[in-house]
Parts: sequence; structure tokens; C-alpha cells
Amino acid sequence: MDDQDVSYDLARNDRIGMPEAILCEGKSASQIESAVGQALQGSAKVLLTRLGRRLAETLTIPSLDYDEKSQTGVAGDWVAPTGDPAVAVVVAGTSDLPVAREAMRTLAFHGIAAREYADVGVAGLWRLLAIREELTQYRAIIAVAGMDGAMFTVLGGLVPGLIVAVPTSIGYGVSRQGETALHSALASCAQGIVVVNVDNGFGAACAVIRVLGFGA
Amino acid sequence: MDDQDVSYDLARNDRIGMPEAILCEGKSASQIESAVGQALQGSAKVLLTRLGRRLAETLTIPSLDYDEKSQTGVAGDWVAPTGDPAVAVVVAGTSDLPVAREAMRTLAFHGIAAREYADVGVAGLWRLLAIREELTQYRAIIAVAGMDGAMFTVLGGLVPGLIVAVPTSIGYGVSRQGETALHSALASCAQGIVVVNVDNGFGAACAVIRVLGFGA
Amino acid sequence: MDDQDVSYDLARNDRIGMPEAILCEGKSASQIESAVGQALQGSAKVLLTRLGRRLAETLTIPSLDYDEKSQTGVAGDWVAPTGDPAVAVVVAGTSDLPVAREAMRTLAFHGIAAREYADVGVAGLWRLLAIREELTQYRAIIAVAGMDGAMFTVLGGLVPGLIVAVPTSIGYGVSRQGETALHSALASCAQGIVVVNVDNGFGAACAVIRVLGFGA
Amino acid sequence: MDDQDVSYDLARNDRIGMPEAILCEGKSASQIESAVGQALQGSAKVLLTRLGRRLAETLTIPSLDYDEKSQTGVAGDWVAPTGDPAVAVVVAGTSDLPVAREAMRTLAFHGIAAREYADVGVAGLWRLLAIREELTQYRAIIAVAGMDGAMFTVLGGLVPGLIVAVPTSIGYGVSRQGETALHSALASCAQGIVVVNVDNGFGAACAVIRVLGFGA
Amino acid sequence: MDDQDVSYDLARNDRIGMPEAILCEGKSASQIESAVGQALQGSAKVLLTRLGRRLAETLTIPSLDYDEKSQTGVAGDWVAPTGDPAVAVVVAGTSDLPVAREAMRTLAFHGIAAREYADVGVAGLWRLLAIREELTQYRAIIAVAGMDGAMFTVLGGLVPGLIVAVPTSIGYGVSRQGETALHSALASCAQGIVVVNVDNGFGAACAVIRVLGFGA
Amino acid sequence: MDDQDVSYDLARNDRIGMPEAILCEGKSASQIESAVGQALQGSAKVLLTRLGRRLAETLTIPSLDYDEKSQTGVAGDWVAPTGDPAVAVVVAGTSDLPVAREAMRTLAFHGIAAREYADVGVAGLWRLLAIREELTQYRAIIAVAGMDGAMFTVLGGLVPGLIVAVPTSIGYGVSRQGETALHSALASCAQGIVVVNVDNGFGAACAVIRVLGFGA
Amino acid sequence: MDDQDVSYDLARNDRIGMPEAILCEGKSASQIESAVGQALQGSAKVLLTRLGRRLAETLTIPSLDYDEKSQTGVAGDWVAPTGDPAVAVVVAGTSDLPVAREAMRTLAFHGIAAREYADVGVAGLWRLLAIREELTQYRAIIAVAGMDGAMFTVLGGLVPGLIVAVPTSIGYGVSRQGETALHSALASCAQGIVVVNVDNGFGAACAVIRVLGFGA
Amino acid sequence: MDDQDVSYDLARNDRIGMPEAILCEGKSASQIESAVGQALQGSAKVLLTRLGRRLAETLTIPSLDYDEKSQTGVAGDWVAPTGDPAVAVVVAGTSDLPVAREAMRTLAFHGIAAREYADVGVAGLWRLLAIREELTQYRAIIAVAGMDGAMFTVLGGLVPGLIVAVPTSIGYGVSRQGETALHSALASCAQGIVVVNVDNGFGAACAVIRVLGFGA
Repeated sequence: MDDQDVSYDLARNDRIGMPEAILCEGKSASQIESAVGQALQGSAKVLLTRLGRRLAETLTIPSLDYDEKSQTGVAGDWVAPTGDPAVAVVVAGTSDLPVAREAMRTLAFHGIAAREYADVGVAGLWRLLAIREELTQYRAIIAVAGMDGAMFTVLGGLVPGLIVAVPTSIGYGVSRQGETALHSALASCAQGIVVVNVDNGFGAACAVIRVLGFGA
Repeated sequence: MDDQDVSYDLARNDRIGMPEAILCEGKSASQIESAVGQALQGSAKVLLTRLGRRLAETLTIPSLDYDEKSQTGVAGDWVAPTGDPAVAVVVAGTSDLPVAREAMRTLAFHGIAAREYADVGVAGLWRLLAIREELTQYRAIIAVAGMDGAMFTVLGGLVPGLIVAVPTSIGYGVSRQGETALHSALASCAQGIVVVNVDNGFGAACAVIRVLGFGA
Repeated sequence: MDDQDVSYDLARNDRIGMPEAILCEGKSASQIESAVGQALQGSAKVLLTRLGRRLAETLTIPSLDYDEKSQTGVAGDWVAPTGDPAVAVVVAGTSDLPVAREAMRTLAFHGIAAREYADVGVAGLWRLLAIREELTQYRAIIAVAGMDGAMFTVLGGLVPGLIVAVPTSIGYGVSRQGETALHSALASCAQGIVVVNVDNGFGAACAVIRVLGFGA
Repeated sequence: MDDQDVSYDLARNDRIGMPEAILCEGKSASQIESAVGQALQGSAKVLLTRLGRRLAETLTIPSLDYDEKSQTGVAGDWVAPTGDPAVAVVVAGTSDLPVAREAMRTLAFHGIAAREYADVGVAGLWRLLAIREELTQYRAIIAVAGMDGAMFTVLGGLVPGLIVAVPTSIGYGVSRQGETALHSALASCAQGIVVVNVDNGFGAACAVIRVLGFGA
Repeated sequence: MDDQDVSYDLARNDRIGMPEAILCEGKSASQIESAVGQALQGSAKVLLTRLGRRLAETLTIPSLDYDEKSQTGVAGDWVAPTGDPAVAVVVAGTSDLPVAREAMRTLAFHGIAAREYADVGVAGLWRLLAIREELTQYRAIIAVAGMDGAMFTVLGGLVPGLIVAVPTSIGYGVSRQGETALHSALASCAQGIVVVNVDNGFGAACAVIRVLGFGA
Repeated sequence: MDDQDVSYDLARNDRIGMPEAILCEGKSASQIESAVGQALQGSAKVLLTRLGRRLAETLTIPSLDYDEKSQTGVAGDWVAPTGDPAVAVVVAGTSDLPVAREAMRTLAFHGIAAREYADVGVAGLWRLLAIREELTQYRAIIAVAGMDGAMFTVLGGLVPGLIVAVPTSIGYGVSRQGETALHSALASCAQGIVVVNVDNGFGAACAVIRVLGFGA
Repeated sequence: MDDQDVSYDLARNDRIGMPEAILCEGKSASQIESAVGQALQGSAKVLLTRLGRRLAETLTIPSLDYDEKSQTGVAGDWVAPTGDPAVAVVVAGTSDLPVAREAMRTLAFHGIAAREYADVGVAGLWRLLAIREELTQYRAIIAVAGMDGAMFTVLGGLVPGLIVAVPTSIGYGVSRQGETALHSALASCAQGIVVVNVDNGFGAACAVIRVLGFGA
Repeated sequence: MDDQDVSYDLARNDRIGMPEAILCEGKSASQIESAVGQALQGSAKVLLTRLGRRLAETLTIPSLDYDEKSQTGVAGDWVAPTGDPAVAVVVAGTSDLPVAREAMRTLAFHGIAAREYADVGVAGLWRLLAIREELTQYRAIIAVAGMDGAMFTVLGGLVPGLIVAVPTSIGYGVSRQGETALHSALASCAQGIVVVNVDNGFGAACAVIRVLGFGA
């Protein structure tokens, strides 16, 4: 009966150039399995996001490639992209890594290679300045930071490519589960930074796919 | 003495591919004139934003091209771009137009032509569906809406290009000066929508310039 | 002694056309049992809401019809209504289903049949357009959605019946446990949408009963 | 050129049983006149809301029936409905009257007569109890209150018809421009109350029209 | 060493007519025991609040009179007051009882008898009207309610004594852990209602003691 | 016609021991005059609050005793009370005085004399300590403070009488129009402080009247 | 009579090493004059803050040294300090200058010279890096910034002296009148930054005086 | 592979006079161990903060000096400072002690001795007045308080040294996890108080080190 609960949007790839991903949080195992089943009827592979280890282990999906750090899985046939990275994923602190990895897995699922630059928050500014030249080569950068989100603005003043800011829920007190980093990104005095929801590494990757994948 | 107050960032164009614009809100006439003077030493033209009519009329800047609806001015030599539009600016309601016009003037200043699609909010869904096919041709779309911001999500499910959502402060009560439209855009169930600050048409245009102008 | 804690409102049905339901959250088992006992002295059946499985299993109430998905129970004699549905329950995502089911059980308890339309969120707009004609036949629609709540506005522009929006706490980050969906519904640019509290499927059903049951 | 700004939704009446009203706040006189012109091509009359006296006096619309208290106007031919009232508009305080009048004018525009019950806030409970019997006769009640919004819950426990709560921005301090009355209505311990945005008398009337006008 | 952490305020009774109570939440068992020891050097008894059962069971305090429902304990010699109640404690719903009991235990500790009126929320208005005459006899009333807090205003319009409103954290969604009931009490259209923090039954009792105990 | 808008609650004095006051904010001159007329049919005098000078000057009420500082007026016959003060009104800063004066005028209207202690905020603690002994003599104290509201807690630890805290909207930035002073009062670590709405000097006085006037 | 309203704290200098300043906002001219008169009885000079030009022009205070940009005045005899600056005031944008000037005037009033570094926001990072070496020489730095407040963190990672962050209300949308800059400063990933209220240049200067003036 | 995740900032001590501390919350054991390893290559000791007991017990770091109350550890060689205290740590309540201890451990790590004054909240004002003279001798005071934060302002009016306020998350209801204490500190009517994030004892200590350690 749960099968009726789920109606996977098979036509999304045709409309917007990306298939629907299955957000697992809040779904039961049978609902997820039903969605995967529907998806694989129209496509060779499907991406699962926000999939915790415990739930993942209860799923009966053949050949599920599960990655705990990013809380993602891929069902079906796929190979990770190789070759030069087209996107930089710049990460302020070690605790922000799970969100960054969600973005990288989503890009990889869509065949886009990315390079991670970890622990380069602006309290140690030299770490970011050291990679500045390299970062100017990227058409698109995903920036991941919590707490004060100051890295977004510094980046925005240094490089010409599209910067997609992903605030994270890292921090305490006035960090307010990411609200301060989010507002900092939106109110940035650097021009042309765009923002997605707190912890939404998946969404940031999708925005980059809209740019790099358009017409491809 | 006010001259010391202002330090126009002449090197920004080299770093990020766009010159600094002069945000006029909160500045005195002499501060603005000083900034314009500095800017024109390094460039043929400079953009002024959030410039109200009264303040604009007190400025002694030769050949200032002022546009009241967008609250922008251009000082120096410039011509508006012609040719096919590269960007769509999709506007939910008539009251959202000033924000949309700020985006279009910013694009025009940078030589990018855009087409405006006005009054296509989703309470009258057919208006958006009627232009859907046309909108799929754009590599980048700036979407401008206040109140519930529902247009962002509908657009996000229909077209493949980059969608930069600009929430506006239009509305009353729980609209909270644009907060609801902002949160609606960020929490969108459509994938890959990116967002800028409330009423920030300038920032949305800059994001698009980062995409279209990269490496140009 | 707990018996004195509870004073079931037996006269409510006469005053407003609906009996009091027993909200179980925050009550002890003996308080719930006392309320059920009082209720069944004046009526053949009584509805229990927000009743978790664990608490339900500790209750010693004969012939309790418990439904986990909706977290509801019915004590006493009752039969679910049959016949054509009088109400549509339109649900954006799979995770919103528990709230929708609470509404449907409440309607059923009052003898009103309803039909569920699940997983029709507007990121895949065709799913909603496909049932549009059918939805125009309903005098009352309960719409259930979390995250951006964009479905409320799209529905509001498509159908003439009463639309009771139930925002849900589904989502993360700026979704803020349903606040964004709630505000989106209230600030909707579609006219005449009404709203109940976050996750309040019971309340939405009661509003519909006020409409369909009046004078009946 | 402003004509292009406005695209009046002529088909709305066919879709949802009510024509689009023109929200004047944030629009220029020429934009309003353009919208009225478009509307009167498809219908004999059109409603204008949130229309201040000053703006109203600058409009060149023949036979505009302007009412300052409700801040509404009607353009075109119309007559106010006569006969028995089908709707009660219950108003807590004198300061809440403008919002109540917007609701009544909207109902009247659609041919529905309503009766106003003013200054019956629950600090003087007898005023509400005195009309209780009368209020039980109405299929639909629009309740208008600011400050604590306590009237909504008291009404909800006394009468069986649909209650549409309209919180108003009346009050100071923690009233927060209507937020407290809004939340009070949504969190009501009376069952089946529905709510619209703060000060949205128009929306409450539209909800009632969806109920009374369905299939008519 | 923990002994130095605690400095019980022995002189408080002389200054304000009430001894310090020991708030147990956030304190370790040894800190609580140290505070009790200090207190009993200057007084025959001491009140402990917000004391959960688990923590209570680990305490080695002779003759601790623990009450789980109110989460309070009394150490030392005491007897509950008898005689006519001087204070009414009016409680909206069954779930609000723990807060009401904290108030009653605090009053009892100070020798003041109180009577509880439970489950008289205004959704069933007759329950409150039935005891109205009786309530007018009290010099002080403690009113306990969550959700919409509408009971505060209704009471405020019916009785002449001091009304101390205690909002509770009962409710969900926009109830916001008691914020809506709190704001409703503060913005009440009934005159002269005073308010304490959410769930602060202890504080409400202390306020009443300031009134009834002054000069005694 | 405006006469119907207003329904003065003549029976309030019998119910709660205080007559209704007329809150002038948001009312028209004719609505106020109508209310005054109704009030004076049942009583010798009536209090008007939140009455600005401009509106006061347009009123045609014989023998209106208007006081600008407190923004209050008294219509009808009255004399200010003489004799020893029964209430202390303790004021933190000079800017808080208008709120304090509203409280004092309300008390005076009800025949209760009060003494004002101005500019005794705790940044200069000696000012408060100097009057401490005197303040312990009062059965009721109205404390008026904005910004951090620290005075409430210090007072609460020094004197035994009832303390009614009135937070004011004085301050800037995080003061948030009185929210910080309000929350500071509610979260006070001193026991038994009660609180009214921001700037509500009238309400604080009414609470004191409930205490001092009960049974009188 | 207004004289009684004001009680200038003459002993503050002895207690905390700084005299009371007169906050003019919310005070009448006669209240300010009374405070100045009291102050000059115990000291040679007194500082007035938040003093607008209009109010300043109505004051009858001999030899008032008024400065519009900082909205401050000094009454009595004083000379601005000369010599090497002991404090750096680092200002992100031109619009933040009034707040910075309030800090500098306060320092000057207390005999401390300061140097201003204007328009060095981190969107043009080179401007800050160019003065980095110089800034490391200061024992105390007052940092003034609005919008995203990113400058606070960058500074915090570059220099060893005390950094007092002053968030300003410059910005729009999610800047929320300085809340985002405030939260950004408090949640900074750079260690040891301290913060004062939004726009509180005076308070920042006082904190620095506590450091530099201690024991002097 | 986790080794790449972490990039300890070895140069921080040279830039700002303090080494980077390792914030353990949100990091895995191997990430912490990697950071410690990097840190000890450039320095004899390193501080670990927000380190819970369970995580601490899984770490394989030789000679880790772990302190549960402050949730801190020190790896490497170190000795606690002896001699006269240079800093006072003033603590309002027993529950605030863990935050105070984090500050004291951070000071000790940097060789600065501090004295703790516990349980001196202003509800018992004499406790603070008794140590007032002693507190005036300190160049720097760290003040730790939750709930209403009233202690900050009282202290600010009594002593001349730098006061770093640390609001704590202690309290319930409107305390809002420390927001009220934070806002109270920022809006203080005492001049020159500076503030750090909620519960940020580490940051307060670092600010003091910036003052006492500058040029040392």
C-alpha cells in the first residue's frame, strides 16, 4: 500500500536536465525502495540523499553504493568521473566536511569532477590566499562554511567565478543552527554571491549543474 | 575632508571581472562625487545603485544617466546593449518591478541584454506556462517575487537554466519585508535554485555576470 | 485522584456540532482512560489524537481502533464511511503523509469520506495539473505541504472550492519546523486560502466539518 | 509603457469562481488605471483594495465608488446586495473596524450581504454571550481581532459555523503588529478555526465566497 | 571542593520575606546537598524545585518530602497548611497540571492553602462560567494555560482579584514552547493581568506571597 | 453612524472593580467622544489613555483634564488623591518617565496616591541603595526600566512588596523596542517579580488596583 | 519641575574611572540642560551623545562643542588630545563612519588620540592587508562594520591587540538593522573578539578606556 | 585520509599572540588526533576545547590532561600558573560554573592565574558588594551569568577594569538558551561592557589574553 505513497518524477530530467533525487529523511524503507524501483525503470541510476547508516543498512537494494560521510547512496550502475576537476569545493572547517561531501557526491553522480580544499577558514587567512590563484581558474566554486560565514565574502572579493555559498549548522549560541552564516552570505558586501539553504550541499551542486550542464 | 572617507576599489575588475558599483544609500553627495571621481580615473564608466531622485538631483556629475524606476545611475560613457537577450528576468507582480529593473540596468551596464517577463505570478499559472518553452532557452534566469515566493519553485521545476531568486519586500503581515519569500526560495522543493538578499536585484545580476562573463 | 484532573466537555457536540477529541500528548494513561470513560457516557464513540504507539499499547480501553500512521485511535463503536469522497486531501510529499492521515481519520470519524492525492508537489507540476479537473469538483480541499509551501498557492489559483492549508514541519534549515510553509500559505498571492497550525491535520478536518456538517 | 507592466488575469473567475481584485498598494496610478481598463473588458465591475484616499483622488476612473474606511473602491456598475445577511462579521474592538469593513465590501462586491457585530471583545464577555444564539445561525463567521486574539477561541467554542479568523495589527509591544493575535488563532484550543494573514479582510471574504459561492 | 561552588543566601528571608529556594536543574547532587545543608543551618525547612525523580533518588537528604508531579521537594520539618484556601489556581488543560502543582507546593511550603480548578479552558466556556462567582471571592488567582492563552483574558474580565498568568510550554507549531501563551497574556485586552516566565509556577506563587505575606 | 462602532462596557466596574478606560490610539475623535458620552452615563468620570496632544485638541469634551507627559486625559469630575503614597513608582532613566506617569495618572484616577523615584538605574547602584529602606515600606512597587532591565532583579532581591515590572521601549539595537527589558524581567533570578507588556504603565497600575482595591 | 527628573551620577568617575555621559535621545532640552548643569558642578567637562542637530540648536549651553557627524557635543572646557594615536579605528564602509566618529570623539574626550582607517572592508581585501603591519602595533582596535561583518573575523586572525567589534545598522534585507553583523562578530571563528551593541561607538570607546585608562 | 581534512594553523601564535585551540565538537577522534599531532610539531602544548568525556576517553594522545568540568584537555607539557591572580572570574550561579571553568583553563594554559568568585548573582546583592573592593583591583574581569544577565550591569557600575561578559545558556522559557542574558549584556546601561558568544568561556579568556599578553 506504501507503493501508492510515492510517485517518482520520471520526466524531471527532460524538463530541467537533472533527474529527481530521493530525499530519504522522513521516508520509510519501503517508501525508499519503491521510489528507487520506479526511478530505475526510467534511468540507469538514481541518487539517494540524507540517508543515515542505520536506514541504509535496512534497505534491500542491489548494488547500493553507500557513503556514510556524505550520507548519500547511488543505486544502479555508475562510475565516478575522472579527469580534471571542473568545480572547486572550498571548506572552512573540518566540521563542515559532511556538507561538502554531499555536494561532491552529487556532482560526481552527474559526471562532474570536483576538487576539495579543506580547512581554509579565514581566521588563518594565508591558507585561502595560498590557493587564490588556483581558485581563479574555476568557473564555479561551492563554498561551505558555518559560524560567521566570513569566508564567503573574502572569496567573493578574490575570484571571478560563480560562488555558491552553503552555510552550515556548525557553531553554537548565536550561530543559531546556521542562520548567522546564512545571513552573512546573503548580506555579503562582496557582489554576486548566491546562497542555498543551510547544510544543502545537494542544492549547491544542482545549481552548478544548471550552469555547467546547460545545453550539454 | 570627506575625500578621505572614500576609497574606491579600482582593482576589483581585475580580480573578479566586475568593477565596484557605488551604493549611494547612506552616503552624502560629496562622498558619492568623490567615489565617482576616483572610479572614472580607472574606468570609462561607473554604476550607482540605490540612488533616490532627490539625492540624484543634488549631484554635480556630468552626463549622469539616471533612471528613477531602478534607482540607478551611470556616470561616464556608455551605451545600452542591443541584440538578442541572454538573460530572462521573470517578475511575479507589478510591485516587484523596481527590483527587476535594478537587475536589468546592472546587466545592461555590463553589456548584457535581458528580456523582462512581467506580472506572471503563479496565482494565474497559465501566464507562466505560456512562456515556459521560451524560458527553457535561457542559460540564466533572474526570478523576482515577493509575498509567498511560490513562483521560484514552479520555475525551478520547469526550466533547466540557472535560476537566481530575488525575494522582494512586497507584501504585508507575515510577509515580513521579504523574509517569507526569501525562506520560501531557500527551502524550495525544486532543486538547484540559488538566492540573493531581499530586494537585491544588483546582486542577482552580478551572479549572472559571474556565469556569463567568466573568461570572456 | 487523576480522575479529578480531567473534565471531558460532553456538551460540545450540541454547541458546535462536533464532540471534543482527546489530545493524548502530555496526558498520562490514566488521564486518557478517565477522559474516554467520561466521553463514552455521553456518546457512542470518541476520537483520540496524537497517540503514540507506546502509549497506545499501555491503554486498557476495550475495542480501541488504533492507527499508527495517523497516530489516532477511536474508542467505542464506529464504522468508516463508504461512498463517494466529499473531500480531497492533496499531499505534496511522502513525508507529509502522517499529517494528511490525521485529517482523513478525523473526517472518517465524523462520517465523511475523503480521497487522498499523494506526492503531487509542484516541483513536478504535471502531477498536479493532471488531477486539476478532478479537484475542481470538490467543495473542500485539505492541502498538506512542508518546506516552501508553494503548492498552496498553485492550488489556490486552479480550483474554486475551499482550500484549507496544513503546513507541515517537514524540511530543514530555514524551513524552521514548518514556519516557512505556514508563512507561505498565509502570504499567498492566491485569494481565499485559509490556514491551520503546523501539522494540525485534525484542525483542518474540523474546519471542513464546520462547512459540510453545518445544519446537517 | 507602464501598460506592459500589468497583465490582469481575466480567466480567474472561470477557474476559481472569483475575479482578480486589484491590490493598489505599491502600484502607480497609471498601472492601476491600466489594470482597471483590462478588467472592465472582461467583466462589468472590478474591486480595488488597499487604496488610500490620496491615491484614489488621483485616479481618472469614471464612476469609481470609493470607501475610505475599508480603503476599497469599485469600478464599473454594481449595486450592494440587500436581503438577509448570510455572513456575520464579528469585531473585537473599534480599532479593528477598517479590516472588518474590507471584508464586508469584498462580500458585497460578490453579492453577499453581511451583518457587522462591533466592539464585542471578550474583556466584556457578556457582549459576545448576548449575541451567541444569533451567531449560531450563520454558516460562516468572519472574526476580526488584534492584541491577544482571545475572541477567536471563545467564538470557536460557542458556534458551529465556519470561523475565519482575521488577526489585526492593532496593539503594541508584544502584539508585534498582529503576530500574537495570529499565533493565538492558529494555536487555539477550540477546534476547526481557520486563519488568514494579518489585516487580510479581503482574504477572509474570499474564503467565505469559496464556501457560499461554490457551484452557485 | 564543590562546597565552595554554592553560597546559599541565608539573609533573603529577612530582606524580601521569603527564603531562597534551591533550583535543582543544572546542579549536581553534591551541590544540592551542600545548599540544603547551608539552608538548614538558618531555617527549619527549605524548598527544592525542578527536581526530577532520578536526581531526587540519588540525594542523601534525611526526610526529603518529594512530589513527582510538581517536581519539588521539601527538606526539613514542615506540615502542609489546612483551612480555607486563600488562593485559586485555575488550570486550562490536564497537561498544564505539573506547572500548577509547582505553584501550589510553593504556596503550601509558605503556609498558604490553595484550591485547584482543573481543566476549565475556554473552549468549553461553561466550565469557567460555572465557577465564576466562586472565583470572585479570591484576593489572588494563579491562572495556568498554554497554547493560545485565551483563558487569561476571559478571567481578567470576570473577576476583581489579582491574576498572575503562568503561560505553559504545552502546544505545538506556533505555540513555540509557550511563547504564544506568554504574548497573549501580556497583550491581553483585559486590564491588570500580570505575567511570569513560561512554566514558572514557582514564580507565580512567590508573587502571591509578596501580596498575601506582606507585613505578616 | 460611528456611534454604533463603540460599545462602552458599563458593567466592568461591577465585575472587576475598575471601569473600562478608553484607549484612544487608533480611534477617531467622534469614536472617542461617543465612548466618553456612554461612559459618563454610568459614572462620574472616565480615563482616556494613549491620547496624543493633537488628537486631544480636536476633542470637544467639556472639562477634559489633559496631561501631555502621560498622554492621558480625564473627563468628568475628579480630584487627585492626597495623603501618604501607597505605591512607589521606581524609574530607571529619564526617558522612561512617560510610561511611569501613565501609571501614576491611572492610580490617581482610582484615588491612589503614589510617589515617584526617578533616575535610579543600577549603573549608579548607590541611588537605589539610598532609597532601599524606604522602598521596603511599600506593599506594591511599580518598576519602570528599558534597555537591559537589570533594575528589576536588583529591586526584587531588596524589597518584600509586590513588584510589577514595566519594561519600556527605550534603547536601541538589541534592546529591540523593549523586548530585552521584557525578557530580562521575565527571566529574572529574583523570585516573584511580575510583568506587564512593554510601555504598559496603565496595566501595571490596574494590577496594583486589583491588589489594593480588592474588597475596598 | 523637570529638574527632579534628572539625577546625574557624579560619583561614577571615582567608581569606574569614567564620568557618566548624557545620552540625549529621548530627553527634552530642559532635561539635558539640567543634567549638564549638575555634571559641571563636579567636573570641568561633560560628554553628550546621540544629540541630533535640531535638538542641539535648541540647547542653551555655553560653549557647547557640537559635532554633527558623530552626533556628539562636549560642554565645558576641553582640548582634543594630540600626539601619537593609541587606538586604531578600522571602518569597513563609508556609511559606517558616523558610528566610528562617535567612538573617536569619546576617546578624545577622555584624552586618548586615535587614528581612523576608513573604507577598508574585506570585499577589497588588499586595503586591509596593506595596513596589517601597522595595525599590529596597536594595543586596542575598534572595528566598525555593518552588513556581513566579515571584517571582524579577518582582523581577528591578523593582529594581536584587543579587537572591539561595533556592528552597525548599515545594510538592508537580512542585515536586519545590524543583527547579522552583530551575530557574525559573536560567532566569529577568530578567537578573542569582543562585541558591543549595534551602533554603539560610545560603548566601544569606553571599553578601550577601561583597558588603557586602568590605574592611570 | 582524514589527515587531509585537518590543517592546523601553526603560524597563528606569531600573528596574534595565541596558538590555535582545537575545538573538538563535531570532529572525529582521528581528526582530533591528527590536529594534535600537527600542533605539537610547532609547539610544546595545545589546548582542546568542548571535549566531552566519552570522546576524550577514545583519544590515544599521550599525557592528555583532561578536565571534565570545563570540558577541556591539554596535550603536551604544561604546568598550571602559580602566583597572584591577574584576572577575576565572577560567576552568577552554580550552574554557570562549567563555562567559567573553560575560561579559567584557557587562561591557565596561557600562563595566567585567575581567581573564581562563585554564586554571587545579584538576587543576593550583598554577595557582590562584599567583594566589590577586591574586584576593583583587577585589570580584567570575566563575568559569567545566564537568565537575566543583570549581574553584568551591576558589575559595570562598580569596577573600573575591563569587563568581558559571558552570557550562559542557563535558564528556561524566555531565557532562550542564553539570548536574554546576551541581549541584556549588550544593551547594558553600564558603559564599556564587552560581550562574547553564549557559553564562550574560551573566547572571553582569549580577549583577556589579547589585553594582558600584548607585547609580552
